[in-house]
Amino acid sequence: MSKFRSMDAFMQLNLHQTHHEIADFEGIFKYLTATFQQGNHEGLHVFPELFLTGYPLQDLPLKKTFIDDYQAFLEDLSVWSERQLKSKGPLALLFGGLRYEFDTLGWPSYIENVMYILEPGKKLRSLYTKQLLPNYDIYEEKKYFTAGHQSEVFEFCGKKFGLLICEDIWFSHLHDMDPVEQLKSHEQKCDAVIAINASPYHLGKVETRINRALEISQFLEAPFIYVNRVGAEDEILFDGHSFVVDGNSVVKMGAGFKSQVVNLDLPVYQSPEKQNVRPYHSSTNSWSTIFSTRLSSDTLTLQPMGEAGCREVLDALLLGIRDYSEKNGLKKFSIALSGGMDSALVVTILKLLQKTYPIEIEAIFLPGFFSSSISYDLSYDLCRNLGIKLTTMPIKFIHSTIRSAYKDNFGNELKGIADENIQSRLRGALIYMRSNDMNSAVLNTSNKSELSVGYSTIYGDSVGALSVLGDLFKLEVFELAHYINKHHGNLIPADIISRPPSAELREDQEDSQSLPPYDRLDPILEALLSSRFTPQDLIKRGHKQDEVLKVYQLLSKSEYKRKQFCPIIKVKPKSFGFGHRVPISKKML
Amino acid sequence: MSKFRSMDAFMQLNLHQTHHEIADFEGIFKYLTATFQQGNHEGLHVFPELFLTGYPLQDLPLKKTFIDDYQAFLEDLSVWSERQLKSKGPLALLFGGLRYEFDTLGWPSYIENVMYILEPGKKLRSLYTKQLLPNYDIYEEKKYFTAGHQSEVFEFCGKKFGLLICEDIWFSHLHDMDPVEQLKSHEQKCDAVIAINASPYHLGKVETRINRALEISQFLEAPFIYVNRVGAEDEILFDGHSFVVDGNSVVKMGAGFKSQVVNLDLPVYQSPEKQNVRPYHSSTNSWSTIFSTRLSSDTLTLQPMGEAGCREVLDALLLGIRDYSEKNGLKKFSIALSGGMDSALVVTILKLLQKTYPIEIEAIFLPGFFSSSISYDLSYDLCRNLGIKLTTMPIKFIHSTIRSAYKDNFGNELKGIADENIQSRLRGALIYMRSNDMNSAVLNTSNKSELSVGYSTIYGDSVGALSVLGDLFKLEVFELAHYINKHHGNLIPADIISRPPSAELREDQEDSQSLPPYDRLDPILEALLSSRFTPQDLIKRGHKQDEVLKVYQLLSKSEYKRKQFCPIIKVKPKSFGFGHRVPISKKML
Repeated sequence: MSKFRSMDAFMQLNLHQTHHEIADFEGIFKYLTATFQQGNHEGLHVFPELFLTGYPLQDLPLKKTFIDDYQAFLEDLSVWSERQLKSKGPLALLFGGLRYEFDTLGWPSYIENVMYILEPGKKLRSLYTKQLLPNYDIYEEKKYFTAGHQSEVFEFCGKKFGLLICEDIWFSHLHDMDPVEQLKSHEQKCDAVIAINASPYHLGKVETRINRALEISQFLEAPFIYVNRVGAEDEILFDGHSFVVDGNSVVKMGAGFKSQVVNLDLPVYQSPEKQNVRPYHSSTNSWSTIFSTRLSSDTLTLQPMGEAGCREVLDALLLGIRDYSEKNGLKKFSIALSGGMDSALVVTILKLLQKTYPIEIEAIFLPGFFSSSISYDLSYDLCRNLGIKLTTMPIKFIHSTIRSAYKDNFGNELKGIADENIQSRLRGALIYMRSNDMNSAVLNTSNKSELSVGYSTIYGDSVGALSVLGDLFKLEVFELAHYINKHHGNLIPADIISRPPSAELREDQEDSQSLPPYDRLDPILEALLSSRFTPQDLIKRGHKQDEVLKVYQLLSKSEYKRKQFCPIIKVKPKSFGFGHRVPISKKML
Repeated sequence: MSKFRSMDAFMQLNLHQTHHEIADFEGIFKYLTATFQQGNHEGLHVFPELFLTGYPLQDLPLKKTFIDDYQAFLEDLSVWSERQLKSKGPLALLFGGLRYEFDTLGWPSYIENVMYILEPGKKLRSLYTKQLLPNYDIYEEKKYFTAGHQSEVFEFCGKKFGLLICEDIWFSHLHDMDPVEQLKSHEQKCDAVIAINASPYHLGKVETRINRALEISQFLEAPFIYVNRVGAEDEILFDGHSFVVDGNSVVKMGAGFKSQVVNLDLPVYQSPEKQNVRPYHSSTNSWSTIFSTRLSSDTLTLQPMGEAGCREVLDALLLGIRDYSEKNGLKKFSIALSGGMDSALVVTILKLLQKTYPIEIEAIFLPGFFSSSISYDLSYDLCRNLGIKLTTMPIKFIHSTIRSAYKDNFGNELKGIADENIQSRLRGALIYMRSNDMNSAVLNTSNKSELSVGYSTIYGDSVGALSVLGDLFKLEVFELAHYINKHHGNLIPADIISRPPSAELREDQEDSQSLPPYDRLDPILEALLSSRFTPQDLIKRGHKQDEVLKVYQLLSKSEYKRKQFCPIIKVKPKSFGFGHRVPISKKML
């Protein structure tokens, strides 16, 4: 320690906003040994929650294969740090990981979500166990982990750091203790607070985190260091945005949606001016914030995402597709274009992804008897704008063949919903046929409005490996399309955005024949999906009774379609997918 | 009370092993008011856990619509019992339900899983709160409910009843207290113990429950009354089998897989003979029992289900299909027959269901270029045996049309996996076309072996509203077919059972070209899915290295197919579906 420069002058903080694939123990070991090989690092290096394993792990920590590999990895880390980790000055690595306790038979008796420390010449050791385990919506940490019961202040180079892990900062009625309050009453006053996180992204979350961090910084009178994971895991995104706040100011803000090492000197706490003092607990989790909506207070309109929101969501979707592709070896994409808004937006987003990530994209137009010529023209214009090849494979003749075969074998004409849906399923089968032949992936193009009311054909337009727009209502799909046209050149033909939405499965079909207009449908859906409104509440607030009841029924009855749907990139607080759990069989609710 | 006959002589117990649809408040209210309308009931009536709401409810208890309706229902019950419930003798109704506490804004501050009591002239009141909340595998009660912390002994007609709710009897390392031990040390000695349950079925569970009940009865020196829910909720089945044990004997055993009111007089505790005394805790939950396997100890063979097991599983599947159909309004079924084992077994099970439940069944054979004539002959023989009409709709010409269209539009021949899978997807689309036209439902015919290794075509043979065989390995499918042939007439042609399994998607295809033989595949899968074995463990025990590693890889890489699969009727301790949570994107584990 004596070699180190005066601690009061500065201490270097390094926030490793990193990403590795789940259970990529080898990759993480290589990253650490490569990063610290030169011995020219010093200071405090902080990595995200569960850096050593990835998150969310779901059942993996219960599997013997995972446990054996992970325990060997911990041992490797310990040996490396004890024997090989060198530094010219004081050095400590703080990162999240799992800590197992085993029973006499060798089976886990419990698993903790902890903060580990590595220091040169020392073995790996656990410093702190996460106390608040989130267990709502997409979270289910109580299923796997055992909570800690003790706050921890860690000393490094004469500075005292209060330690917290993710949910620990979000005290609410869901928990029975407050780890931040524990630090306040800890015998050692903190010079800074370190929170390591694997905090999933949703629109607006960055602001929520910073507001809470400012509160805590003021409450504990210490700078607050927030390190977040980055990267996408199937449907769940981690957005990075690591930061440091102090008193009433944001000292440092990390990048969103990409890996980065953020370096800074540890700030010294500055009290805010009186008018800027925040009460503690002004923005914590509670029943109402967890189920917050993006509705104007009368629930009759959906708030637009805005320019900043669109930019953020676009970045999120790009990361979501990219990481899913990379982890699952997807290098080519085959997209079925309909001439409509949703598929146009998906292929445009893929094109934007292609600017920074090498993928091949092909567009396929599968016109049927009811596809209008304008659908082809618009798909053609779109592909020309994007510089993507468009192949047309008409389904009319195949459809005719099926109609004849049906009549021949079952004795009656194919008509109505059966004749409509076979077109959609034929397209689903054909786009997957192409994807099998090209070894490409199919992205789903459904939006959240359709998914909510079941306005899609199962195994038809609902196919795909990953849903890009499944967490965006139709109004938001339009908003994002406008945003992209404004900021990335007019890629999407204006007529695609302005034409009335239609599935084109029968003569002159339009969405509005089956559903309320989207500017009325979407707010009803947002309200009902939040769980905070009953149909009666919405009718009282001025929504049309027949529309509300119809939407409510469609939502309730279409659960079976969502159960077989692909992962949806999550960009909202409440999404379909892992955090949405509703029985198929039930009295309508 | 004075009117009632001597309590020592007897007390009538009525175990209502009932089923109502989830959130069917109106139906439950009608059932109660109708059952007790005459006023000629007396004694103690015990209903299952969460009788008032159904189970599992998943997110429903968090929805304002559910909360409002449920609170109104509780109020109705209270008013009814206070004003209208009459009885000629002492009467008490014990049942499970939810109890909400609300904050000042009217939002729930917590929810408890409780036992309520209704008595003539009195309001509804809560007696006991469930203390152990299961939160592993398919269970996630800690996500929704708050645990109680106090045991309860309830007195009725001079008898003292210890109260327990489901998981309360299954103390293990997963919990930090033992409600049974609490009753042992309670100041009031119990004359009997009542446990109300919503205990999901799996093969072998009845025996496990009885063993545990006998232990507890001896430990507390009191008869043990076990009331279970019956009925199917999507994938999860409740099997009934309510019972009363006393000392070392089973006093009463309720029916399996159907509603029933079991009546008996409360037994007086009989100590078992010394040689029959069981140690307390001989059969509780633990890591190893939760992840138990049906393997012989060397892991090289899968234990057969046996005659009793087959009968039980068949009953379970019949109930699973029936309740799903009833709740979702399915009255007709369209089944695609391939001439193979799985589809033959599914249609045969439907036929058995038809004996007690009115449904229409139609079978469809969709032969392609590679369907052998024997596949038709066997499908024909099967349908003749079952008395079901078989319609053939060849896909050859449609397939040819698609091949031509593909070549015309994409410029190359359709071949390999693309040409194989299009046949499967075409069949998927066509059977759904038929189902749309007939307003019928399609049942999935995949087995657990296929599902495990991803040996199926997504949107092809993997389609369906409900999976009947998805929790049975291929060996078990054969075993169940033999059982049905033995006990229900030789419905399934012997050649269907004996022919080598094939998808018939290319010339001379057989499953064994892609997979190890099922008698080697299935034990490897059972071991890996239990989470208790690593591939290395299996190789050490004599499994072939190349087979184990291949199966392991297929299992790991096919998660994306299972994510889009329909609900599977659960008949095993560890099943795909709600209790199986594995990320798609991960380093192979």
